[in-house]
Amino acid sequence: MKDCIFCKIGSGEIPCLKVFEDEMTLAFMDIAKDVDGHILVIPKAHYKNILDCEPDALSAVAATVKKVSLHLTENCGYEGVNLLNASEECAGQSVPHFHIHIIPRKSKDGIDGWPHFDGAKEDIRTVFEKVRM
Amino acid sequence: MKDCIFCKIGSGEIPCLKVFEDEMTLAFMDIAKDVDGHILVIPKAHYKNILDCEPDALSAVAATVKKVSLHLTENCGYEGVNLLNASEECAGQSVPHFHIHIIPRKSKDGIDGWPHFDGAKEDIRTVFEKVRM
Repeated sequence: MKDCIFCKIGSGEIPCLKVFEDEMTLAFMDIAKDVDGHILVIPKAHYKNILDCEPDALSAVAATVKKVSLHLTENCGYEGVNLLNASEECAGQSVPHFHIHIIPRKSKDGIDGWPHFDGAKEDIRTVFEKVRM
Repeated sequence: MKDCIFCKIGSGEIPCLKVFEDEMTLAFMDIAKDVDGHILVIPKAHYKNILDCEPDALSAVAATVKKVSLHLTENCGYEGVNLLNASEECAGQSVPHFHIHIIPRKSKDGIDGWPHFDGAKEDIRTVFEKVRM
């Protein structure tokens, strides 16, 4: 999509620190400098987020997330990963091109890889009746 | 797997608040009460986490995460989602059966859906040379 920075990274128009690439996906270093080893996985085709991502692209992104995560743990000295995604602005999505964050983890690395939730305010059964399919 | 609580939930041996189910996956309410609307998506087959999850099961989990997320935003009054996963104990994984957390989000819901990172300590290019494939 025109003017989408991640489309331009996916196509090679904008350079990146490329960790892995295949036909449908790209994994590259996040330049945010918020945490060590932060990697993003994107589909090369444009989707805003998981809500509009087509099945083939979604499977390809998931496969690349697994492939990179395995590489990190098998070959790079990490022991696990946190995976994060924000879909839509209300969830904190800042770049409107689907991307999954991989945070490589080790024991006692001092990284706080989980959000700080304040506790549920609604009754779980009330919410359940609202969201069940 | 014997003695796996999520295998037992997947098979119906232990009851849950079931949001969605298909042949390979299950989505159900997380009883942690840490945040409103917290839903878990699991494969029914046992995998510890994304590192050992087979491609078919991984695609099925991703498809169910999308299906539930779309339902939340199209039919339940939510506007987006955060998706979270911890793979391995060092990343905070507490139940050793692959699961993706869906946190339904709305504008100004007061939910802090992102980890608090302390900033990178290593040079990004040094890390890149370590993790590139």
